[in-house]
Amino acid sequence: MSTRPPTVAVLGATGAVGRELILLLEQRDFPLDRLKLLASPRSAGCRLVFRGEGLTVEAVSGEALAGVDLVLASAGGSISRRWAPVMGAHGALLIDNSSAFRLDPQVPLVVPEVNLATASRHQGVVANPNCTTILLLLALAPLRRLAPLRRVVVSTYQSASGAGAQAMAELETTSRDVLQGRQPRNHVLPHPLAFNLFLHNSPLDRNGYCEEELKMLRESRKILAQPDLRLSATCVRVPVLRAHAEAVNIEFDAPVSVDAARQVLAEAPGVTIIDDWANNRFPMPSDVTGKDPVAVGRIRQDSSHSNGLELWLCGDQIRKGAALNAVQIAEAMVRHGWLKPPSPSPRHPDQDAPVLQP
Amino acid sequence: MSTRPPTVAVLGATGAVGRELILLLEQRDFPLDRLKLLASPRSAGCRLVFRGEGLTVEAVSGEALAGVDLVLASAGGSISRRWAPVMGAHGALLIDNSSAFRLDPQVPLVVPEVNLATASRHQGVVANPNCTTILLLLALAPLRRLAPLRRVVVSTYQSASGAGAQAMAELETTSRDVLQGRQPRNHVLPHPLAFNLFLHNSPLDRNGYCEEELKMLRESRKILAQPDLRLSATCVRVPVLRAHAEAVNIEFDAPVSVDAARQVLAEAPGVTIIDDWANNRFPMPSDVTGKDPVAVGRIRQDSSHSNGLELWLCGDQIRKGAALNAVQIAEAMVRHGWLKPPSPSPRHPDQDAPVLQP
Repeated sequence: MSTRPPTVAVLGATGAVGRELILLLEQRDFPLDRLKLLASPRSAGCRLVFRGEGLTVEAVSGEALAGVDLVLASAGGSISRRWAPVMGAHGALLIDNSSAFRLDPQVPLVVPEVNLATASRHQGVVANPNCTTILLLLALAPLRRLAPLRRVVVSTYQSASGAGAQAMAELETTSRDVLQGRQPRNHVLPHPLAFNLFLHNSPLDRNGYCEEELKMLRESRKILAQPDLRLSATCVRVPVLRAHAEAVNIEFDAPVSVDAARQVLAEAPGVTIIDDWANNRFPMPSDVTGKDPVAVGRIRQDSSHSNGLELWLCGDQIRKGAALNAVQIAEAMVRHGWLKPPSPSPRHPDQDAPVLQP
Repeated sequence: MSTRPPTVAVLGATGAVGRELILLLEQRDFPLDRLKLLASPRSAGCRLVFRGEGLTVEAVSGEALAGVDLVLASAGGSISRRWAPVMGAHGALLIDNSSAFRLDPQVPLVVPEVNLATASRHQGVVANPNCTTILLLLALAPLRRLAPLRRVVVSTYQSASGAGAQAMAELETTSRDVLQGRQPRNHVLPHPLAFNLFLHNSPLDRNGYCEEELKMLRESRKILAQPDLRLSATCVRVPVLRAHAEAVNIEFDAPVSVDAARQVLAEAPGVTIIDDWANNRFPMPSDVTGKDPVAVGRIRQDSSHSNGLELWLCGDQIRKGAALNAVQIAEAMVRHGWLKPPSPSPRHPDQDAPVLQP
């Protein structure tokens, strides 16, 4: 790899996560030679500002990807699957925010604070985990140093942003409807979310878990490299704009003290503690909106299990739950010189396509 | 007891639960001779309609309580504690919605579908459980017939109504603030609730559980008559107006099949099933607002425990979570002739006051 800074493309540049990616590349002074903004043909022609300069969004194509070293993609699984082989042929590293490649054994699934080293062994794709998984693992991974994790029961409080920018706008319009005595009308979300909430509407498996809940289980197992981790999640969409919360019940193999847990979490990268028992002050979505760290609090001994801890966490879904985690991966790839795969890449569009299918 | 229908008083008549009590007494055609509306001196003089007739709210006093056979109270613990001895002296039965007497061993704590028989042994006070407890037990109690309960982990999604009518109004005003780009201002709730959520702000015990969470544990143990029940709750206030939801993880002493659980719940009084896996349709606050039954769904085998079930429920907090449960108790007391204590009451204001302290 040359020492020239990489040419970077954001794919899905006009979405909620795409816009945050651009903002973070600017705010964090990401070392890049040139930024290209890519999206579906429908969004091509939009102008977005980066470092004070107006950039035109281009429709994604083989031509538009030529010369790109690094793609940060947040355009959905089918777009990622379609264009990954082309990126591979061009020698570009894909850091993908969709679920398309997360469980592919050849693709590292990375939370930099937890398992960055696995990213060095990529074959052209590094996957960004689901938002709820990232937030959960920032707390679970450090706690695991105190005792092995046996079982986790988690309930989520997920904001509209997880369903995209249009869902956020719909939460606002349906809230106006309700406040003005009108029937709320939903087009993006499966039900009106204003002053309401509902179980995550991703497809159910035959056991009644939805895909969002299964992502948390499977991705946590892969990232923690603990295939026997037991985890049961209930994922719920709540009328909050862009920060998720999670109520987490953790069973360890041995008792873990609240003080030890609090100390480990206080020292954990990416975590901030809001655990003020005297003032009854704990993390809220409004504390973390637009912020980087995941806030953890109400860390307490589980009254129903001697080896159990309960805790509560909040994190910005668009930031650490998606865009920030991807940019942190990208920064590490550049810093460590890992943009190109460790060995001569065997990648070739036709060869790779089957491997990349989940 | 004479066969004359009782004179009934609603204490706290102008609150969210008080108004619902009046509505339910009317809608359910409660057999009463006369209805008196009582409240703090601040609310005295308000006019409320019952059965098409305007009634004036009186300030609560010994005089106002004279001749009353049955008081439905929802005016807070200190008011209930203050006036319970006076009601006792007048021979009136108090059905109390506050937490003042719930854990008093002499006071039955009643969910009619679960433990109505205990109400017959009252000594002048019957307590109405906390909203989250009532909703949970409508599902837990029938399931217990399939296998003994070992441990319950529950996360709540509690509406503004649980904090009273003013909190509901504040959720609306702060939502307007946010939608109009203004800083939301809270006076009733501890934080702005609009597009936000926070852990229930009741006082914490030394283990870090808040009172709301401990109520669920202690009240469930008492109502189920299972003092060794293990239960850990995380109680969360969400920006919903008047229906609560709960994500419930239940560990039994033996495996329980999803089909058996669904059948038992489908036949359980006070429960309705919304569990449509094909259409991904499960209970939402908007399904149960203003409705009587608790809706249960997403009943599934816990993927993390062979003896575990996960389920999700929603119920109207003001209705079954408070006013309806109290009116159902009252109806049963009248129907069974239990208004007066089973033996000559030993009640006397001075004697009783210490016993009634929690």
